[in-house]
Amino acid sequence: MGRRHAENLRLVPEAKLLAVADPATERARLVAQELEIDHAFSGFDEMLALKGIECVVIAAPDKFHAAAISAAAAAGKDILCEKPIALSLADAHTALQAVARAGVRLQIGFMRRYDPGYSNARKRVEAGEIGEPVVFKSLGRDRDAPPIAAYQSKLNGMLLYNNTIHDFDLARWLMGDEVAEVHTFATVAIRPEVAEYGDIVASVVNLKYRRGAIGNIESYVQAVYGYDIRTEIVGSKGSILVGNLQQTPVTFLAAQGGTQPLADHFLTRFESAYVAELRDFVHNLVHDRPLQVTAEDGLRALEIAVAAGTSHLESRPCAVTRRASSAA
Amino acid sequence: MGRRHAENLRLVPEAKLLAVADPATERARLVAQELEIDHAFSGFDEMLALKGIECVVIAAPDKFHAAAISAAAAAGKDILCEKPIALSLADAHTALQAVARAGVRLQIGFMRRYDPGYSNARKRVEAGEIGEPVVFKSLGRDRDAPPIAAYQSKLNGMLLYNNTIHDFDLARWLMGDEVAEVHTFATVAIRPEVAEYGDIVASVVNLKYRRGAIGNIESYVQAVYGYDIRTEIVGSKGSILVGNLQQTPVTFLAAQGGTQPLADHFLTRFESAYVAELRDFVHNLVHDRPLQVTAEDGLRALEIAVAAGTSHLESRPCAVTRRASSAA
Amino acid sequence: MGRRHAENLRLVPEAKLLAVADPATERARLVAQELEIDHAFSGFDEMLALKGIECVVIAAPDKFHAAAISAAAAAGKDILCEKPIALSLADAHTALQAVARAGVRLQIGFMRRYDPGYSNARKRVEAGEIGEPVVFKSLGRDRDAPPIAAYQSKLNGMLLYNNTIHDFDLARWLMGDEVAEVHTFATVAIRPEVAEYGDIVASVVNLKYRRGAIGNIESYVQAVYGYDIRTEIVGSKGSILVGNLQQTPVTFLAAQGGTQPLADHFLTRFESAYVAELRDFVHNLVHDRPLQVTAEDGLRALEIAVAAGTSHLESRPCAVTRRASSAA
Amino acid sequence: MGRRHAENLRLVPEAKLLAVADPATERARLVAQELEIDHAFSGFDEMLALKGIECVVIAAPDKFHAAAISAAAAAGKDILCEKPIALSLADAHTALQAVARAGVRLQIGFMRRYDPGYSNARKRVEAGEIGEPVVFKSLGRDRDAPPIAAYQSKLNGMLLYNNTIHDFDLARWLMGDEVAEVHTFATVAIRPEVAEYGDIVASVVNLKYRRGAIGNIESYVQAVYGYDIRTEIVGSKGSILVGNLQQTPVTFLAAQGGTQPLADHFLTRFESAYVAELRDFVHNLVHDRPLQVTAEDGLRALEIAVAAGTSHLESRPCAVTRRASSAA
Repeated sequence: MGRRHAENLRLVPEAKLLAVADPATERARLVAQELEIDHAFSGFDEMLALKGIECVVIAAPDKFHAAAISAAAAAGKDILCEKPIALSLADAHTALQAVARAGVRLQIGFMRRYDPGYSNARKRVEAGEIGEPVVFKSLGRDRDAPPIAAYQSKLNGMLLYNNTIHDFDLARWLMGDEVAEVHTFATVAIRPEVAEYGDIVASVVNLKYRRGAIGNIESYVQAVYGYDIRTEIVGSKGSILVGNLQQTPVTFLAAQGGTQPLADHFLTRFESAYVAELRDFVHNLVHDRPLQVTAEDGLRALEIAVAAGTSHLESRPCAVTRRASSAA
Repeated sequence: MGRRHAENLRLVPEAKLLAVADPATERARLVAQELEIDHAFSGFDEMLALKGIECVVIAAPDKFHAAAISAAAAAGKDILCEKPIALSLADAHTALQAVARAGVRLQIGFMRRYDPGYSNARKRVEAGEIGEPVVFKSLGRDRDAPPIAAYQSKLNGMLLYNNTIHDFDLARWLMGDEVAEVHTFATVAIRPEVAEYGDIVASVVNLKYRRGAIGNIESYVQAVYGYDIRTEIVGSKGSILVGNLQQTPVTFLAAQGGTQPLADHFLTRFESAYVAELRDFVHNLVHDRPLQVTAEDGLRALEIAVAAGTSHLESRPCAVTRRASSAA
Repeated sequence: MGRRHAENLRLVPEAKLLAVADPATERARLVAQELEIDHAFSGFDEMLALKGIECVVIAAPDKFHAAAISAAAAAGKDILCEKPIALSLADAHTALQAVARAGVRLQIGFMRRYDPGYSNARKRVEAGEIGEPVVFKSLGRDRDAPPIAAYQSKLNGMLLYNNTIHDFDLARWLMGDEVAEVHTFATVAIRPEVAEYGDIVASVVNLKYRRGAIGNIESYVQAVYGYDIRTEIVGSKGSILVGNLQQTPVTFLAAQGGTQPLADHFLTRFESAYVAELRDFVHNLVHDRPLQVTAEDGLRALEIAVAAGTSHLESRPCAVTRRASSAA
Repeated sequence: MGRRHAENLRLVPEAKLLAVADPATERARLVAQELEIDHAFSGFDEMLALKGIECVVIAAPDKFHAAAISAAAAAGKDILCEKPIALSLADAHTALQAVARAGVRLQIGFMRRYDPGYSNARKRVEAGEIGEPVVFKSLGRDRDAPPIAAYQSKLNGMLLYNNTIHDFDLARWLMGDEVAEVHTFATVAIRPEVAEYGDIVASVVNLKYRRGAIGNIESYVQAVYGYDIRTEIVGSKGSILVGNLQQTPVTFLAAQGGTQPLADHFLTRFESAYVAELRDFVHNLVHDRPLQVTAEDGLRALEIAVAAGTSHLESRPCAVTRRASSAA
């Protein structure tokens, strides 16, 4: 993901990529060489000390997000950090306090907001085209579950923090309302070995909104057939579906039926969204405009994930605890 | 619905429609005249007494289903009864006891099982094409909510008994497993006036299956844009989607986009399924074969509806209580 | 096809099927028995002599259509005859004269006009929704070519008379204009053995309309993957597509892509159109209203087929010769 | 288009854009400034004289293509030239001779070959997935016709040279065969004012291939609803459709039906193809590999356009005249 952001930065006219950092020094060096970047560091702090750096993009493993945000903030850099903002509310608040103290700006990488389908849906909902929103539905399915070796931490319901977090953000952003309560059923299903890491393979999360709407989000980590992202907002006057199963505009007609290639990965499905995200982030920094996805958005989505995780563990519906954001 | 069944019976070669009954006598008389049926009754019992009648189709309002089943059974008739089998588990058991005592056969009108899309999905799941089922998803949206005047009874969560019951049946039939626990969030949303009848306008019901799979069902009674029925079974090797937003095979391309007509009503969406249901029911009676949708199926779906209703009322997940079916 | 019409007649309340005739006597007898029809004949004339018959449906092989129309007309029966009306303009005129002389009514079996997609398209074009029609496009592909043994006659370009004739009718009906000139390229392609019968396996026919619009029709007899019928009318304000590749509302998502079952046969694709055609024909006879597809429509489509066949044989564009219809 | 190529060149790591030239000097200067290009010229020859230039991209109006190719070749530059290679066969041959004489390389801008849908189709056809190709179908519709003021030359059937030329290239490339004969019907339809420039608004071109396959191409310049590009290759074992009406993955469901946004312009529909084209062109130059779209491809497509134009003017089918390419 870090490499992709580095490549994408070349498509951002207002940005110049000065350096990359990766504890795997050799990898950092290679990327810098291929992409003609002047500096490669193994340490994040080392890079922060480089003269001329104004902002950083954080694409480290999830568990390092909060600390990296704090470090970058302390160094006075503006920040684009991948989701989730942190893996606990305590860590999130520490990071947000560092951001507030330093007076820097922080955007969270909810890139779906930059997808043409999702942004079109948002505009239509805001314009009242579907009337009053009544039901929010979303599903996210990955093709290939991460290898067991990749499990970084024993976090109950990691799926909710790593994947569903995108839908928790959409659930707020598209409905223009806050989630008040959630209920989760989850399963390890066909991959019982993740249970020892506390993780789950699939989940369904019921949502209740403050103003009375309801919703449900499904996540599944091993869909085999592709990368499948679909969202629907149902209202009193109509409904909006976002999503497109077909990846390449080709249909093959043969005796077994009509077949279309399916989307296979988030880097292809959201290719243009990632570029648009970087462009918008840099543009707003340069022109001193408000960021479109705030630290508060990162915190709110995490609060829903935490409630969903608790619901799963305690087998009961859970209220989403709202705490004042230090950055708000 | 009764009239539709009467019309459809003319398309069933192995059946002869002898009589119709409706408390609205004039309506019964008119239907009989139009469809060239010999007898029209105002009373159901009166009709049951007619010589030569071997089986009956019950399409009365939901609250009369159980009593009508008992009466028909007592008269020794085989029965096709619209869903739900009853509005309470007690009533259902009384009816099933009557059926068992009389030794007649009872099929419940889950006509979706006869839809080419759903039956194709069932076959594929059974054949193992999607591997192990992991997630069940379904949604049912009606275009027009029933008029307030039509509210027959004060039943909390009538939507669950009247609409979602179809999905509860699909949830068992397509997954080949039983639902063990449910959790419901519901809303009166844009139609607060139904609250005084205890009803709801939309609901999301989380499902947990005995063997570990999970699921979610959404129901919405006032979708405005059409009659929208979609179901998906997600497995370890693939996924099957059932549903088709487009009603007529026409696309209109104009400056505002590409537009297709949407399905508008269950009588058009499931037109052929209703006919196939009647044909299969009559065929199995005539040839003394097992019925494809049993009294037990009716009871099991009702048990899920009752649990979903309780979950809604008591704001907690509820186990689905299984009771031995008298007809089993 | 005859059997299908017989079955469908049971779905036409205003009709009663009295008799079937088939030179294969045993087949006629069997159908009559299965469908509970009182009379079965081996000879068409014999059947025409039966008392009480008011109209006949002709589904004989194409080469007998004209003679059968003449015979039925001479016997004073109203007629629904499958397309094409005849295999030559001379035969068509003889038949139409017989119809005119007898004062009976004749409808040609262009059942696509009764398909919900096509009739919706017609209504939109007539209502001006696409503005001025500019281009007409149509394609018709059969899944399985007829067996060589089934070739009834040595008619150059039989494909044009038997299949494309449907599109020639649509070309007139949907555009509200007459075809003035055609140009045909045809091929025996992968089935050279049909060349000895003068037939072709695929063709593309360019169209020029009287008022200046243009068009193209593709026909292919051996598409393998299914029965594929698509039509498009392109206008100054928009376009209308008719057609639907998917037969059953199911999508199967697996590693190889997303797959839908395709339409496989005209009897399934146009199942409801065939019933609607019979209902409308009988209804208009009973209520003495004008028929919706006239003898003139049959003649005009044949005239285009003849011009398209000549174009193929003589390798040049051909004007469509218009002759006054005796039935007009 | 020139500006787009200039922007895209920034996404080609192996290329460095040194200069732009435009007779509209101010426009050249502005583009150079915005895109941080070192040099801006008003004269093409002037630019060719700049030291360090190894290859040029020609995106001048069609009528200047041939002369620009000759000039660039004479200056020893490799060339990517937009389609068509020229507006007459004589001009094309002069240009190709200049290319051959100078020993430079020339690629023609048939960018559709770089579209994921088209390249996937090509691979499947080559792999024999549809068996023997029997029918080629293609259509190209622009949303907005060019303003009358933009008409650069009195060329009969300019539409065929400017738009349909893409399909003529696809007709060869996807079928792996050469077009031997064509027949054209064309119309000025709803825009009679183009007739005085000899142009047409819509055309249908029948194709006959050397090995016996047939085809048809439709072009329309004023589709109003969007930019619509669809191609189909029908074979003995199956068929491949390329094209996608929907631009943004959003469906809006409302009382009037389900609506999707449509593709609106070739720069959005083929956005990634244009970049891939430049990357491939530069990559092959740098690594001294054969170009993927050759001068000969440009000539062959033009030969078909010329035959299609003659067919339109002379109202007869025309053989495609093949002349040895000087570059071959």
